[in-house]
Amino acid sequence: MGSLHVEDLDNISKCTTVENPLDPEEFRRQGHMMIDFLADYYRDIEKYPVRSQVEPGYLRKELPDSAPYNPEPIETILEDVHKQIIPGITHWQSPNYFAYFPSSGSVAGFLGEMLSTGFNVVGFNWMSSPAATELESIVMDWLGKMLKLPKSFLFSGNGGGVLQGTTCEAILCTLTAARDRMLNKIGRENICKLVVYGSDQTHCALQKAAQIAGIHPKNFRAVPTTKSNGYGLSANALRSTILADIEAGLVPLFLCATVGTTSSTAVDPLGPLCEVANDYWIWVHVDAAYAGSACICPEFRHFIDGVENADSFSLNAHKWFFTTLDCCCLWVKEPSALIKALSTNPEYLKNKATESQQVVDYKDWQIALSRRFRSMKLWLVLRSYGVANLRNFLRSHVKMAKNFEGFVSLDKRFEIVVPRTFAMVCFRLLPPASPLIKSNGYQNGNGVYHKDETRANELNRRLLESINASGSAYINGMLFWHGRLSRSMQMLYLLHFSFNCFNLCQILILVFV
Amino acid sequence: MGSLHVEDLDNISKCTTVENPLDPEEFRRQGHMMIDFLADYYRDIEKYPVRSQVEPGYLRKELPDSAPYNPEPIETILEDVHKQIIPGITHWQSPNYFAYFPSSGSVAGFLGEMLSTGFNVVGFNWMSSPAATELESIVMDWLGKMLKLPKSFLFSGNGGGVLQGTTCEAILCTLTAARDRMLNKIGRENICKLVVYGSDQTHCALQKAAQIAGIHPKNFRAVPTTKSNGYGLSANALRSTILADIEAGLVPLFLCATVGTTSSTAVDPLGPLCEVANDYWIWVHVDAAYAGSACICPEFRHFIDGVENADSFSLNAHKWFFTTLDCCCLWVKEPSALIKALSTNPEYLKNKATESQQVVDYKDWQIALSRRFRSMKLWLVLRSYGVANLRNFLRSHVKMAKNFEGFVSLDKRFEIVVPRTFAMVCFRLLPPASPLIKSNGYQNGNGVYHKDETRANELNRRLLESINASGSAYINGMLFWHGRLSRSMQMLYLLHFSFNCFNLCQILILVFV
Repeated sequence: MGSLHVEDLDNISKCTTVENPLDPEEFRRQGHMMIDFLADYYRDIEKYPVRSQVEPGYLRKELPDSAPYNPEPIETILEDVHKQIIPGITHWQSPNYFAYFPSSGSVAGFLGEMLSTGFNVVGFNWMSSPAATELESIVMDWLGKMLKLPKSFLFSGNGGGVLQGTTCEAILCTLTAARDRMLNKIGRENICKLVVYGSDQTHCALQKAAQIAGIHPKNFRAVPTTKSNGYGLSANALRSTILADIEAGLVPLFLCATVGTTSSTAVDPLGPLCEVANDYWIWVHVDAAYAGSACICPEFRHFIDGVENADSFSLNAHKWFFTTLDCCCLWVKEPSALIKALSTNPEYLKNKATESQQVVDYKDWQIALSRRFRSMKLWLVLRSYGVANLRNFLRSHVKMAKNFEGFVSLDKRFEIVVPRTFAMVCFRLLPPASPLIKSNGYQNGNGVYHKDETRANELNRRLLESINASGSAYINGMLFWHGRLSRSMQMLYLLHFSFNCFNLCQILILVFV
Repeated sequence: MGSLHVEDLDNISKCTTVENPLDPEEFRRQGHMMIDFLADYYRDIEKYPVRSQVEPGYLRKELPDSAPYNPEPIETILEDVHKQIIPGITHWQSPNYFAYFPSSGSVAGFLGEMLSTGFNVVGFNWMSSPAATELESIVMDWLGKMLKLPKSFLFSGNGGGVLQGTTCEAILCTLTAARDRMLNKIGRENICKLVVYGSDQTHCALQKAAQIAGIHPKNFRAVPTTKSNGYGLSANALRSTILADIEAGLVPLFLCATVGTTSSTAVDPLGPLCEVANDYWIWVHVDAAYAGSACICPEFRHFIDGVENADSFSLNAHKWFFTTLDCCCLWVKEPSALIKALSTNPEYLKNKATESQQVVDYKDWQIALSRRFRSMKLWLVLRSYGVANLRNFLRSHVKMAKNFEGFVSLDKRFEIVVPRTFAMVCFRLLPPASPLIKSNGYQNGNGVYHKDETRANELNRRLLESINASGSAYINGMLFWHGRLSRSMQMLYLLHFSFNCFNLCQILILVFV
């Protein structure tokens, strides 16, 4: 009855694609070239100006207006990477890079990314590639144990961990889960009453997530912090804000507490904050994007004391845990809240494993459906270095920062603006005192201020720009909202230590001795 | 006056980290090993069962309960990848993989990812690494021109392109932009009135994005499609739905039209749909995740005719354009709408370049702040293959599907359920006709159906499972909601062609001849 004919195969075999874009031997040849290219790049990295010195629009002048019609050899492309791309790169992996956050690259992280890219599985659910899901659950439990997270955050305690791209995504997912949990109780039409809380030091990821999740912009609270609290969010200030909102008929929803803020690595006191939040059924997310990693060292673990009463906790392994971007580790106590808010069950993804309820389908724990095999890099980092070395790395960074802080504080021309907690130093140059300024100085509860902060800021801005323009180091400067009473803005530097502090000290000596 | 002392440097130099986790020579040694590991994997890939055959929980039985305390050598780790991970991998890059969507890996895409990972820049804004932003704008213009997108989607026409991770993110960003544009006009308190439109064939990414953006779940419209329209969304059906919503006091907001649906690669008619949407100030997003790539071939370009009246357009280069996950290309006509909805301007990211308004800061075009250097992979793919070869690749995939469709349609035991448009074939096995069933058969506008579809579905499900369990090929089967009148569900297979069609024909012959 059938009519499938073997002879038809002859015709069909002719239509196989003429060239295999993933030819194994071509992959081998070009892959080895690329490894050498990158190894040479790392070897020579200090030869390049750390901060790119190009002007806006530089690349459009160098590249053609449209894509090439014919193929170009990899040799030509790599030459162009050298000539056209590298000048426009700010070298985040350079030992002279101290800006934004630490250089997080490592051999193990890179190799993990290669494996993830090489397998190129699209792991939306267990079925699509079981190892991707299972390895992720396992390494998230491993890392959770290293951090001594309470069992309720681990799979064995009915919580669980998931790898997101960034903290923004982690906050958006947990905020959406909290929002829907609340709206299912009080009714969808009350979405405009929901209030989100952070401090004036909280990362803007919270504001962005609130915007996207449809929280009324008027209901975003950035509770002011003070120098006397080390820029941590005070539980009392939080409670007053919440009470005022309830009084106004609003509904408190979500608190993002930070361990290691971006501006000064301040630590919000988790214990007292969770206590307040729990009184009002508020979802507490702990954003330990930067400093969370350090908590695998027993001496730093106390900074997340109180996390046992939070609902979710995240840290960025790509910030200070030796993986490349992107790798945000998120743990939640109540995965079902995430799943209820984020799941969809289209016909084309149905499968036996999902129906058996024996597996995790991570697509329902995140924004996107498709997802990369990110756990591979975390697994390689954990195994290649081991807990012992990872602690040593982190401690050495903290020690560098501590040494640098000591070095700078010996010189009266500098001020350590916020005492160092982890591996970041916050300092600034003080303006040379003039008799006029001295006599006009005033003091408030937050310390001594000069009336002409403007002059100090200008001086620091000039120094910052001259260091960054030199190409010898790249450091961050920012205007810091320094105390809510004084309303003064201070220009200061934020230095992240991960490679060394030696070069930077040399620069300061060159400039100042 | 100063007290920075050169002799202090001696102490400081001692505190440099003991081991460099990114040592160039160690990187070189291990990197070469990994390239060989992956090249061997691609060479041997057909030896593995395409779909992983493991049972839920297999990996937890093999791995230890906690991370190792001491470092382990890469040699051991790679052995474990072989023994423990590969059995749990579903081999998306195998020539025998026909499921979900095409195998999209390529040498160029992999090398691009290596460069992106190697530089490891965190490109939230122009300043943080100018080349990352500028290359992205340039290649998005290149690809936009290859697709003959109207100038209003290119930077030269005041629109612009951005690389997102996935379509989910692209839809969420554009939906958020549309939402805020509307709410700024009609008032925040009306968020519960906003309505989002798609068809019953639209990818669940739309539903997920609507959930996250706070659209009332009751206001999500999946307009039914019919076989007679080739499962495309009818403009008339859309208009009736919109009118009913307006009548009910709701506010039409957003339409997601699809070019190449997931279930049957159906194409929504962009021209007529945009005409309807434009009458009601509805934002139209065109999701061409899969089929968009084919539109760089002149003979397929007509499928996106009408895009000139849409507001945004996206395709996934990681689906059918030779880059690895993740790489979703999104173009918008009105970047300012995105920026208004998604921007945040924290103090620590302020810089001269941004203030000069001469640069693009892509952090304001997406959900997250941090972003990888994704344009590197698109640039390498475009240059390594050139427009000519890229078209050839795509055409060869379509030709394979066409040949397979012809091969199968010669045999009356099979039915081509939806005529093939691109490189996917939708077919099923018909149940052997029995006199009883023949006499009970009925006909409706959508074709002939047997009353015992259940039997047919069961038969197809068994064949599907036996093929997938064999490990020789992995194909997708799904229950297809086949026509809104008949309400019948049909089990069918979806095959994506990217490597070859030869092996699959062989399997069918083995089973059926």
